[in-house]
Amino acid sequence: VIADRVFAVIKRTQDLVGETILITAGGTREPIDPVRFIGNRSSGKMGVALAEAALDRGAKVILVGASMAVPAPPRCESIRVTTAQEMEAAVLKLLSEASIVIMAAAVSDYRVVSPAPEKLKKKASLELTLEPTRDILRQIAEQRQEGTIVVGFAAETENLLEEGRRKLHAKGADLIVANDVSQANSGFESDVNEGVLISRDAEEVVPRSSKREMADRILDWARSAARARTI
Amino acid sequence: VIADRVFAVIKRTQDLVGETILITAGGTREPIDPVRFIGNRSSGKMGVALAEAALDRGAKVILVGASMAVPAPPRCESIRVTTAQEMEAAVLKLLSEASIVIMAAAVSDYRVVSPAPEKLKKKASLELTLEPTRDILRQIAEQRQEGTIVVGFAAETENLLEEGRRKLHAKGADLIVANDVSQANSGFESDVNEGVLISRDAEEVVPRSSKREMADRILDWARSAARARTI
Repeated sequence: VIADRVFAVIKRTQDLVGETILITAGGTREPIDPVRFIGNRSSGKMGVALAEAALDRGAKVILVGASMAVPAPPRCESIRVTTAQEMEAAVLKLLSEASIVIMAAAVSDYRVVSPAPEKLKKKASLELTLEPTRDILRQIAEQRQEGTIVVGFAAETENLLEEGRRKLHAKGADLIVANDVSQANSGFESDVNEGVLISRDAEEVVPRSSKREMADRILDWARSAARARTI
Repeated sequence: VIADRVFAVIKRTQDLVGETILITAGGTREPIDPVRFIGNRSSGKMGVALAEAALDRGAKVILVGASMAVPAPPRCESIRVTTAQEMEAAVLKLLSEASIVIMAAAVSDYRVVSPAPEKLKKKASLELTLEPTRDILRQIAEQRQEGTIVVGFAAETENLLEEGRRKLHAKGADLIVANDVSQANSGFESDVNEGVLISRDAEEVVPRSSKREMADRILDWARSAARARTI
């Protein structure tokens, strides 16, 4: 068993040469006014772990990073964005260059309808009207060239498996990484993660492990899917 | 002139021995649900620059840090908080230990009335009702022991001087540091800052300078005020 694992790790070396992997990371922010915004707890650690693992395995990596608590790896092409709309524009522009797309960023589902041009003054109450942002994962799945592998994430606090399966089909992705973000020591802001990889024909539980180890599991899956497309 | 400046810098050395300075830093976050929050663009750099300058000048420093893009100095006592309410509780509890209080954090003015216990699902629109948080600076100014110096910040995008003067009086602070956060390369997230120090009897423009230099100017002022109280 140990020999198998060593062999698997050795085999991973440079097994993604020739792939161009577009990875999104971090959390987008939607302005309320010039000072305040609606954000989310994504640290960018999962996306950066994916980028580092893919680089180590020989892939070309393009990282589209929103707000992140960790730096982008210096070895990859890196684009910084703030809002969901900026991320959408960057990802759709780069889509044709990618053979694999992994959407690890936590993208705002909502944006403020009319952000204030000046800092809002404190008053008795404030109503914010939010509207949905466009679904980037679904657009990627629709607009991709034949053969491009699309991986999405589902960060959930309940009904993990059902939500993951629903998103796989609703968005047309090849793989959904469903992870439970309600646990204090896993997922957002943590160095470890756990979850379920959900594809159309298989589900694989990833037990609590480092984000780097989870990244390699996701890349193993994407590599198999990429190999299958060429047969 | 150069000799004067060198002398001033030398004189600063250890001129805050005996002072305990309570400093707040970073931006508080108010939850919308377990994943999303309302935040602000404060990086914590100004508060950390104040803490480092105060430590170098011999003060004891207690740092109450919200969300920060930079680490707290290892030499100070450091408390981490998330929301405005947590910051209020931490600061009021520590107030009696401090001879100088500097509120450099950007504290949420509003919080969501009823944060959702589970992650909100995407739907056609979302209304968020916000209510004001309690004013921490005003409470500190009211509850402080005689002789404690209180410094607040006013981050503004317009009418800098008028807002700074208004806050000085409305909140009962001894000094307001008013800074313009509408400029791209100054204030929030930047390593430089500029603004006006506003006290009851003087106003001093601080031209564009490093946050460390601005920190030392603020501490110079606080030291003079602290010295005046003992005469």
